[in-house]
Amino acid sequence: MRSSLIESAARRRLLAGGASALAAAGLGRAALAAEQKAAPAAAAPPAPASAAKPLPAYAAWKQPDAMIVHSANTIETRREAFGSGVVTPLRQLYVRNNLPPPDESIVADRDAWVIEIAGVAKPMSLSVGQLKSMGLQTLAMVLQCSGNGRGYFPNKPSGTPWQVGAAGCVIWSGLPVSVLVEHCGGLSAAAVYMTGTGGEKLPDGLDPNMVMVERSVPKEAMRDALLAWELNGEPIPLAHGGPLRLIVPGYTGVNSVKYIKRLAFTEKESPAAIQQTGYRLAPPGQKGDPTQPSVWAMGVKSWINTPNPAASTLKAGRVVVQGVAFGGTNGIKQVEVSTDGGKNWRKAELVGPDLGRYAWRQFALPVELAAGEHLLVSRATDTEGRVQDEERPQNSGGYINSSWRDHGVAVVVQA
Amino acid sequence: MRSSLIESAARRRLLAGGASALAAAGLGRAALAAEQKAAPAAAAPPAPASAAKPLPAYAAWKQPDAMIVHSANTIETRREAFGSGVVTPLRQLYVRNNLPPPDESIVADRDAWVIEIAGVAKPMSLSVGQLKSMGLQTLAMVLQCSGNGRGYFPNKPSGTPWQVGAAGCVIWSGLPVSVLVEHCGGLSAAAVYMTGTGGEKLPDGLDPNMVMVERSVPKEAMRDALLAWELNGEPIPLAHGGPLRLIVPGYTGVNSVKYIKRLAFTEKESPAAIQQTGYRLAPPGQKGDPTQPSVWAMGVKSWINTPNPAASTLKAGRVVVQGVAFGGTNGIKQVEVSTDGGKNWRKAELVGPDLGRYAWRQFALPVELAAGEHLLVSRATDTEGRVQDEERPQNSGGYINSSWRDHGVAVVVQA
Repeated sequence: MRSSLIESAARRRLLAGGASALAAAGLGRAALAAEQKAAPAAAAPPAPASAAKPLPAYAAWKQPDAMIVHSANTIETRREAFGSGVVTPLRQLYVRNNLPPPDESIVADRDAWVIEIAGVAKPMSLSVGQLKSMGLQTLAMVLQCSGNGRGYFPNKPSGTPWQVGAAGCVIWSGLPVSVLVEHCGGLSAAAVYMTGTGGEKLPDGLDPNMVMVERSVPKEAMRDALLAWELNGEPIPLAHGGPLRLIVPGYTGVNSVKYIKRLAFTEKESPAAIQQTGYRLAPPGQKGDPTQPSVWAMGVKSWINTPNPAASTLKAGRVVVQGVAFGGTNGIKQVEVSTDGGKNWRKAELVGPDLGRYAWRQFALPVELAAGEHLLVSRATDTEGRVQDEERPQNSGGYINSSWRDHGVAVVVQA
Repeated sequence: MRSSLIESAARRRLLAGGASALAAAGLGRAALAAEQKAAPAAAAPPAPASAAKPLPAYAAWKQPDAMIVHSANTIETRREAFGSGVVTPLRQLYVRNNLPPPDESIVADRDAWVIEIAGVAKPMSLSVGQLKSMGLQTLAMVLQCSGNGRGYFPNKPSGTPWQVGAAGCVIWSGLPVSVLVEHCGGLSAAAVYMTGTGGEKLPDGLDPNMVMVERSVPKEAMRDALLAWELNGEPIPLAHGGPLRLIVPGYTGVNSVKYIKRLAFTEKESPAAIQQTGYRLAPPGQKGDPTQPSVWAMGVKSWINTPNPAASTLKAGRVVVQGVAFGGTNGIKQVEVSTDGGKNWRKAELVGPDLGRYAWRQFALPVELAAGEHLLVSRATDTEGRVQDEERPQNSGGYINSSWRDHGVAVVVQA
């Protein structure tokens, strides 16, 4: 049973990361023996095939050995690069752009960037400099791509095969949207959605609705939303949406619109394809359409980062199992860890500062691991009692995979 | 009165940062008019004379324009570089080494670094790899050099003339010292102090006691102390004490011994000069000696980072005054802000996540500033009701300056 669990996990990783990921995931016995012959224990973990791709110029400042470059607009944090410091360093934070980012020139004079506010009693345009004079709030939150975990779907949905690393816990500073709305005399009576429009340059000759990044979320999501100009204490890098980004805490990353140039409180959802048909929970085999749920709030999720076969060789004995857990719009109540693929569970300790309901918590549990194979899994429960799902949500886009089983770490412990 | 306050503040900065700092500090009217003629408002703020010094190789990864390089072992964060993200990014964090750091080779195999534990029932040596298997805790805290603010002492004590930037709020991960002590069977009966010894290579031909970095703190300081291997989620850089650093939260930086190779619970304080005569609160004009108080726990302190004349030109109107406040071993209860040099005070809002008692809090207060000169000051109160001092503590070493008056920001607002 244990062996088959591990082989299943290894297969999932094979699907996720190509052949070279098999070694990192922990192998069945036979394959492992072969690998041990070929590569001594002290050798560096094998790099996924995608490691060869260079970082794009706008993200050249990222830490190369911490990242998996899927493409110029999709760059993932390696699972073994996640530390235990709660806040993800910027040079390790994933990047996902739906369009190529605007020219660097837009961050030359950050305070001059202008945003249009509509769907309020007093519509107006404001510069970042003006926003800065109106107030300040700072918020820690998990930024996670809607497709994080897509790589564990066995049917290979189209889109980037992210594993765990299209996520990070970061700190944003900016003006609360609620303060802005009050400044603008309140919402218009018809407002149902908060709709943000990105400032990317659109390709010529195409219907803007087909390509523009414009997302709508329920207006209630404005409660803790920010118009942010700082990320982890620095002006927001272009790669992450600077000079100004809409931050919708608890929602997946696509809803936090980068380079935001318009914030409108609207009666209807955006007509853009990215809203109407993209980021929809379509049944397997079907295309997205507006009748299906939109990918908005995140679910309860956790995963283990250490031990990690990609980072070190494990010897029998005591090891501290550690990872991260978050509840989307809720804080975390508890995390359980199993070293036998989910048959027996023990409660882990939540360690480190609690950065608020939208942040992730770090968990740790010292365990004794005997020689052999183990499938380590974690399962989080949020403050409202919602428990992390065992299975991935079947949907054609491979969105919001929170399955604790998919996110297990298969390790082979040596005597 | 206002004018003289500002001129006094400008003079202090002149003493602190050399002639070019005068412009950044805000000038008297006459001097300002002359400067405005010479340099248009859009020009970059003048760089202090020390900006010309390059970053040393072991800290070459720091952000050059965020740092003031006083010397190869004393590198300060510019006040205008501090963001509002609570946690100080590593590339902006100050560096202070009492000796040149060890060779980079000591971080090549971090888990192999060994620390000796003494003054416990079962003395032993443990590798970082072993420490990692024993537990994990994560802690946010203000790391501040004992001499931060020395630059505001008018009598120029010997030592680096730090202004506000020999401080940062960072996140450490490691093993609680209390867990280690339990593992070692508890403290020896004679233990009064916790004494940490740094792993720097000592110069040949000198009495080790004259040069070694070995600091003792009361054993009670072990309560929340860590042996840390991660800083802000990354392996601790050599510049900041990796592979292993003793972290004594609430105490000044020198007490958190870098490259720690020995942790001993001792009956007496270390015989090293850095303990016996260094870091003592000696009366002005006197040398340090063991009868004087040692520089240990930090006091209540705050300062304003924005607005900052070095970063921008101010126009009359509304501006958000923001800064940081911390209480050493206590959390912060409130921060007050004055725009008239301390005559009238208003309570600021504490914003952003609370990272615990040892971290700093960010504060913000929107104010209206008329054209003219203003001296902006902040004053913090900790959770036990201790109020930040108005005046600096007179001592020959220029240590632990928490004076709210010294840390004021003089601004000239244009119509």
